[in-house]
Amino acid sequence: MHVSEIAGFLNATFIGEDRQIEGVSTLDNAKPSDITFLANPKYTDKALHTEAGAIIVKGRLPNEHVSQIITDNPYLAFARVVRLFVPEKTLDAGISDAAFVHPDAIINESAAIYPFVYVGKHAKVGDRCVIYPHCYVGEGVVIGQGTVLYPNVVVYDGCEIGKGCIIHSGVVIGSDGFGFAWDGQRHFKVPQVGKVIIEDEVEIGSNCTIDRAALTETRIGTDVKMDNLVQVGHNVVIGEHTIIVSQTGIAGSARIGRNVILAGQCGVGGHIKVGDNSIAGARTGIAKDVKPGVVISGYPAMDHKKWLRVQNVYKDLPEMLKRLNDLEKRIDKIDKH
Amino acid sequence: MHVSEIAGFLNATFIGEDRQIEGVSTLDNAKPSDITFLANPKYTDKALHTEAGAIIVKGRLPNEHVSQIITDNPYLAFARVVRLFVPEKTLDAGISDAAFVHPDAIINESAAIYPFVYVGKHAKVGDRCVIYPHCYVGEGVVIGQGTVLYPNVVVYDGCEIGKGCIIHSGVVIGSDGFGFAWDGQRHFKVPQVGKVIIEDEVEIGSNCTIDRAALTETRIGTDVKMDNLVQVGHNVVIGEHTIIVSQTGIAGSARIGRNVILAGQCGVGGHIKVGDNSIAGARTGIAKDVKPGVVISGYPAMDHKKWLRVQNVYKDLPEMLKRLNDLEKRIDKIDKH
Amino acid sequence: MHVSEIAGFLNATFIGEDRQIEGVSTLDNAKPSDITFLANPKYTDKALHTEAGAIIVKGRLPNEHVSQIITDNPYLAFARVVRLFVPEKTLDAGISDAAFVHPDAIINESAAIYPFVYVGKHAKVGDRCVIYPHCYVGEGVVIGQGTVLYPNVVVYDGCEIGKGCIIHSGVVIGSDGFGFAWDGQRHFKVPQVGKVIIEDEVEIGSNCTIDRAALTETRIGTDVKMDNLVQVGHNVVIGEHTIIVSQTGIAGSARIGRNVILAGQCGVGGHIKVGDNSIAGARTGIAKDVKPGVVISGYPAMDHKKWLRVQNVYKDLPEMLKRLNDLEKRIDKIDKH
Repeated sequence: MHVSEIAGFLNATFIGEDRQIEGVSTLDNAKPSDITFLANPKYTDKALHTEAGAIIVKGRLPNEHVSQIITDNPYLAFARVVRLFVPEKTLDAGISDAAFVHPDAIINESAAIYPFVYVGKHAKVGDRCVIYPHCYVGEGVVIGQGTVLYPNVVVYDGCEIGKGCIIHSGVVIGSDGFGFAWDGQRHFKVPQVGKVIIEDEVEIGSNCTIDRAALTETRIGTDVKMDNLVQVGHNVVIGEHTIIVSQTGIAGSARIGRNVILAGQCGVGGHIKVGDNSIAGARTGIAKDVKPGVVISGYPAMDHKKWLRVQNVYKDLPEMLKRLNDLEKRIDKIDKH
Repeated sequence: MHVSEIAGFLNATFIGEDRQIEGVSTLDNAKPSDITFLANPKYTDKALHTEAGAIIVKGRLPNEHVSQIITDNPYLAFARVVRLFVPEKTLDAGISDAAFVHPDAIINESAAIYPFVYVGKHAKVGDRCVIYPHCYVGEGVVIGQGTVLYPNVVVYDGCEIGKGCIIHSGVVIGSDGFGFAWDGQRHFKVPQVGKVIIEDEVEIGSNCTIDRAALTETRIGTDVKMDNLVQVGHNVVIGEHTIIVSQTGIAGSARIGRNVILAGQCGVGGHIKVGDNSIAGARTGIAKDVKPGVVISGYPAMDHKKWLRVQNVYKDLPEMLKRLNDLEKRIDKIDKH
Repeated sequence: MHVSEIAGFLNATFIGEDRQIEGVSTLDNAKPSDITFLANPKYTDKALHTEAGAIIVKGRLPNEHVSQIITDNPYLAFARVVRLFVPEKTLDAGISDAAFVHPDAIINESAAIYPFVYVGKHAKVGDRCVIYPHCYVGEGVVIGQGTVLYPNVVVYDGCEIGKGCIIHSGVVIGSDGFGFAWDGQRHFKVPQVGKVIIEDEVEIGSNCTIDRAALTETRIGTDVKMDNLVQVGHNVVIGEHTIIVSQTGIAGSARIGRNVILAGQCGVGGHIKVGDNSIAGARTGIAKDVKPGVVISGYPAMDHKKWLRVQNVYKDLPEMLKRLNDLEKRIDKIDKH
């Protein structure tokens, strides 16, 4: 494919030679037959020394020998270009003989059901869905069109997954929420009879756990993107477009707004509300409601810039203590006079 | 079912109309045909405005139009009532033709073994057990009566699970403890030849990992309740009734007492002893032994109330530093006189 | 087996009676027919009171009645002895009739493929590999000789695992890295078309997640040992012999050196470099590059000894504030004079 064709696909302009491009790569690893990109200005120097034949950039670089496609959002443009060179796997529709599909389940004929998949009674699997081996699709589960369940995904009875979702391996959707009432002698299990609803275009990373609601529903909004090993407690609601990074935990009944970012290893307490468009830095511990639009960090969570100052003092605490000790001695001396 | 019948089932009194009740719901979502409950006084206002037909409460509310069942522990009472309206799934006993059961395994005839279950040599599965698809029951494993293994549970060879346990999807029981000895050139694996014993009435949340002991046993006591994504290292012992919330990690050989609560994202160091009836707040990092009956938080772990005060000062550290700077200047001035 | 034979196997000397030994055990649980070991001097008192018939020690103990094998590294020696008494399970080679193996996959005839294993097109499984039930070996995956995949391991298409590796249950290798570009309306998925390469002699604990690279490779070096529930982001590179303890998370493109130790619940930020031979204590939050050979702790990460002092002051912050308040009052008084 020529640079001019790629530029055309992106509705972008290009400068330099209209070379033949055969693959995609990073700034470091690209060969003259590859196209690469520069999104973060931090890597401009690497871009100036890349051996790539073409580069997608925001502003023109002084590289005479590299063809340049100029666009506002090089990262997005590159993401779109990757699929030109590495097309998605095509799959054969149909139900494997080695799968178990309950006779009362409804599988669209364009769906692909791999060996060792289990699909329970009254479950519905939409068109062009792909259900990889060892997935469990419980009784009454609904899976929307085009959704992919990678191997070893478990969807407990009655849960619903929307259209165009990607659920990675080991994800558990709809296990019981954590609820017990002490009866004087032991923990009595509070039945968890709600469900999980996952809206459209959601991606969930491997080995995440999303508990069903006690009575109503746990809901993951459209276009939510969740990294690996995230825990979502019962009755949690997560708004559209929210990003949740790896190993974050969200306790029961928390309400996470739209367009929120929770970075890695955060914790959100039970019943907490996190406002729309807010951002929590890595490892933030959120024990109080968060206003919309703020940027927070730390534990207890506080304004991110304030936290940076707090951390700065924190690491010098022993010196600060020494200064305090000295001051006390000096004042003792003054007082003695 | 009438309110009077529900009250009778609970051995409780009721006031108001003896309505027909058809379902269970939350304060917010209940319809006039539903019963709900008020356990936390924080939600009294919601209770006063609920549209439920009946409510389980501790103290009488001034709602004339809602039937009220009065009981000491509304949460427990409600938990018991849920099962009146949402009965547990009934399952057909028997071994699926699509399961693999070793000829030398012993499966009680009242157990349900789903498709794609693997049961190894000499394993024993007790009466009324339910083993969902894709579970692996290793060689010599014993599973007590009435225990449920949700899909994709792995129980390594030789481990034992008691009666009435609920093991959620993705749980791994009996993987090797983390033990290596440096031999001068590489890490030599210390064989992990012990096992895991899980006593009765234990519930383990999805994707938890519980390692087998190096030589003896890792033991989870009766009525322990574990949330999702918890890590339990080799040789750990956890006492009866202890609650462990999501994403907590317990390092090898730690001893957790009875009736302990470890809230979410805690960490317990290797060989640490945590005393009976102690409570650790979310994210507590426990690096020293903990006395019985205490409430702790923070990292390093300290008395919870003290930690609240520490956090309060911590967040104002930059201001404190400024005050220290000012004091030094003032004393410098005084000293100059 | 006699003590003299065990000593011979270890090329070590022994003192005391040349007893018959029948098993291995801990200091606490050993019977007179068992051999045990003392590695940590902290447990010398236990060693003096053990009922074991023989003990592996570094320095001679004043126990007349216990046979003693003297060696420089008792822990390593014991690890080697365990396998004399508890041999590894022997497995029958061959492909189960209940497995699914693509006709274009290549399985060495000495490998053991259990029921319900799925092996995709063009995958290669080396000699003496063991693939336990419910594993998914994707298209084009390569698994080196002698590697064991415990039940429910998922290896996505195109990933490579070296020789002599042990991959515990629930591990996911090669799920998509977490990469999205905002297109003005939604998160556009950045295709993750790289792979994961796991070198030789690597052990990975249960339910770990290791993402495939966006374009190139995520690489886990030879003899890396990873505990349970560890997250490894896309494009991460981990050097040889590095130890990563449970629940640690490593964000995308981080470079972890050789012989590094990351203790439990650590976090490493994206693109961070952690130098060779460095050690991070439990829960360290690494947001800046780490030099080789250092020992760090805390968040922000700092020199471990400094952190111990910081923690010490931190826990007394309220008292420190009180002293500051008192000082201010005293100076106010002085100033008034």
